[in-house]
Amino acid sequence: MELVKVIRAERTMPITTAGLAAATDSGEVVTVRGMAHALRDFGGVRFVVLRRHDGVTQVVLPEDARMPKEGDAVEFTGVVVSEPRAPGGFELRAGTIRVLSTPAEPMPVPIHKTNMGLTLDTDLSLRPITLRNLRARAVMKLREGLARGFRDSLAARGFTEIHTPKLEALSAEGGASVFRVPYFQHKAVLAQSPQFYKQMMVGVFERVYEVGPVFRAEKHNSSRHLNEYTSLDLEMGFIDSVEDVMACETYALRYMMDLLRGEYAPQLDALKLTVPEIDGIPALRFDEAKARAAETYNLPRGDPNDLTPEEEQAIGRYAAEKLGSEFVFVTRYPSKKRPVYAMDDPDDPRLTLSFDLLFRGMEITTGGQRVHDYHAQVSKIIGRGLDPAGFEHYLMIHKHGMPPHGGLGMGLERLLKQLTGAANIRQACLFPRDTTRLSP
Amino acid sequence: MELVKVIRAERTMPITTAGLAAATDSGEVVTVRGMAHALRDFGGVRFVVLRRHDGVTQVVLPEDARMPKEGDAVEFTGVVVSEPRAPGGFELRAGTIRVLSTPAEPMPVPIHKTNMGLTLDTDLSLRPITLRNLRARAVMKLREGLARGFRDSLAARGFTEIHTPKLEALSAEGGASVFRVPYFQHKAVLAQSPQFYKQMMVGVFERVYEVGPVFRAEKHNSSRHLNEYTSLDLEMGFIDSVEDVMACETYALRYMMDLLRGEYAPQLDALKLTVPEIDGIPALRFDEAKARAAETYNLPRGDPNDLTPEEEQAIGRYAAEKLGSEFVFVTRYPSKKRPVYAMDDPDDPRLTLSFDLLFRGMEITTGGQRVHDYHAQVSKIIGRGLDPAGFEHYLMIHKHGMPPHGGLGMGLERLLKQLTGAANIRQACLFPRDTTRLSP
Repeated sequence: MELVKVIRAERTMPITTAGLAAATDSGEVVTVRGMAHALRDFGGVRFVVLRRHDGVTQVVLPEDARMPKEGDAVEFTGVVVSEPRAPGGFELRAGTIRVLSTPAEPMPVPIHKTNMGLTLDTDLSLRPITLRNLRARAVMKLREGLARGFRDSLAARGFTEIHTPKLEALSAEGGASVFRVPYFQHKAVLAQSPQFYKQMMVGVFERVYEVGPVFRAEKHNSSRHLNEYTSLDLEMGFIDSVEDVMACETYALRYMMDLLRGEYAPQLDALKLTVPEIDGIPALRFDEAKARAAETYNLPRGDPNDLTPEEEQAIGRYAAEKLGSEFVFVTRYPSKKRPVYAMDDPDDPRLTLSFDLLFRGMEITTGGQRVHDYHAQVSKIIGRGLDPAGFEHYLMIHKHGMPPHGGLGMGLERLLKQLTGAANIRQACLFPRDTTRLSP
Repeated sequence: MELVKVIRAERTMPITTAGLAAATDSGEVVTVRGMAHALRDFGGVRFVVLRRHDGVTQVVLPEDARMPKEGDAVEFTGVVVSEPRAPGGFELRAGTIRVLSTPAEPMPVPIHKTNMGLTLDTDLSLRPITLRNLRARAVMKLREGLARGFRDSLAARGFTEIHTPKLEALSAEGGASVFRVPYFQHKAVLAQSPQFYKQMMVGVFERVYEVGPVFRAEKHNSSRHLNEYTSLDLEMGFIDSVEDVMACETYALRYMMDLLRGEYAPQLDALKLTVPEIDGIPALRFDEAKARAAETYNLPRGDPNDLTPEEEQAIGRYAAEKLGSEFVFVTRYPSKKRPVYAMDDPDDPRLTLSFDLLFRGMEITTGGQRVHDYHAQVSKIIGRGLDPAGFEHYLMIHKHGMPPHGGLGMGLERLLKQLTGAANIRQACLFPRDTTRLSP
């Protein structure tokens, strides 16, 4: 018996769809493994559609073989031949089949159908298997592409990736929308955003980003809210104005959309999606955007300090119809509705040097320039009736030197929802969390 | 006044260190921004060492300029000239200086020194500014490299990135080491690992990975434990044996180390680190490893089902001295100490098809093959005295078809600690969480 074995770097890499395409009509014998996703029996010819890591492969069964069951893990060996009606234009003519595992019970829902015909609630309750549906899977693959594009675009511009803590001390600004966590002898909360930490890290790396979970204990159970979501955050130092942050977002989004177009075409095709072309993104001041939405679409003007979902929709429509863009920045939000770290507009301190980004009529990003001067930040904290002592660690960076800086947070699920045209944000999340749903 | 402005993609990209090197002795006038990190006054010549996004730059002050303060955000314009004694072999001879912001108080600790001379506790309490120290910053940049290398290596092998929820329903296997979170009308816990979710996602994408936080409410306050850490997780389907998972880890680690050597050389140099060369990684069975550690180093044999930290150190030493490797796999752990989803060894069901990976004498990974058969998994749950009803969503995947699969979780902080030779794991984390520390 061999007592010391040496493990070499990965030996097994499953053949890719591109590899199968390259082997087409070559006569080369290949081995393909996957899950029996759909079964078709046309009397004389029987097919298995295999669900594989990077796509689906049509396999023609050997004549004498038993038809596998839906959900079997199977291995086929055979040759790849052209077949214009098959996915990718080829199919595997299998010589042998080997069943590697088999399910205990039949699939309870038709995951092999384009449209499973399920209510959202059933879909979510059966999520471990409904995600196997090819449309659901394509949405989640695009999700990967967006996260990856965000990271890669920023890494190419001198940003450093950070991982900030999700458990924090219960702080002064706490509020009702934080989840509280008993933490040994202390009280912790779950991070609602990496805001303070990413600002701290601007002092270290100048430009930073993070892709990670954030937690909001908000009670609204709407089609656009989740209680846990993935936030795409960036923060950058040495900005000349808040427009540098907006320009960086324009750049990152363009990069992300180009990446999807370039490397996620099978998923976009499966979902029949068109990815926006981003050249520039128009920006309207808050008051101006509100006025134009009201005038153009006869909307009532609600809260003078915020936008309602209906106003966001109208501004999105205005941008699409009048400005030729599916994205639109809304700038100079009133200070009243912006957080304590937002920098006020020196021309009008009732406003902030901040922005939201709307995509197809829904807010997907909040960002802005931050206060970097120690005394200005302390004043603003006191002005809000808060105690600077509660911000001790945060104020350390202002006290000992911070460059002018700003940043933003983008909700990955909101971006994906709008991109895929999903009716509900839960469809843009693997295992969504809402006020009543904690599992699966 | 311009009412609609169009924001174009990023206009500002700070000049890189490579860009400065390229401009050296060209006479080209460049603008450089950064934080005044260290100040040196040699009477006639005064220098500022600027801390910038991708390195440090030595600047010679204009003769008539006032010396900036440590922590000032400054902008210099000038020409780059060769200077062998300066970082990178060049310095900026500044013609103009502009101070963009200035700190309210002087730096309380010597962050500009190679060794700050602080106790760990002081270092961590002042973390927002002590991370500005160049050694601390280099460690955190390597952290980025490891996370990036893990992702990139797997993406190149057909893996899909996933983001699984960190809030979960309180479940049967809960136990003492989970953080509990009141969640509206329900009871939630913080995820200790993405284990069940990544297995679910193998049914969808075949090969998946996640880089994300995990939470352990363990009470030990040691140099190798954190209560929140970043886990590098992968899970892969259609394996022939657990060795496919080990081979994949060998591949990923080799990729990560090569990436550091290739793209993080300045950080490695700053820390005077040597990155291990990985060809293959030796593997020893648990019982064999335990015996050799005991025999070679006269260690008492403790718990027959687990390894003590001392045994891990001895096995690591054995691997380095006798097998020529800083990494070593330990395989076939006893079933008693492995979780309910671990696949038992068909040759000896007291053992599992599992492994740990030790790096320089410390466990950095736990992995193994998982049960994929529904009936086998139900039996194993019952055999542990647990109720299968508590595993309803998890068992859905086994019930409706799963390929043979396995995976692993690697602790990013442990890997980074061992790589950098840090005495304490807290030095491998931006803002560590332990039983008493929740801030900064």
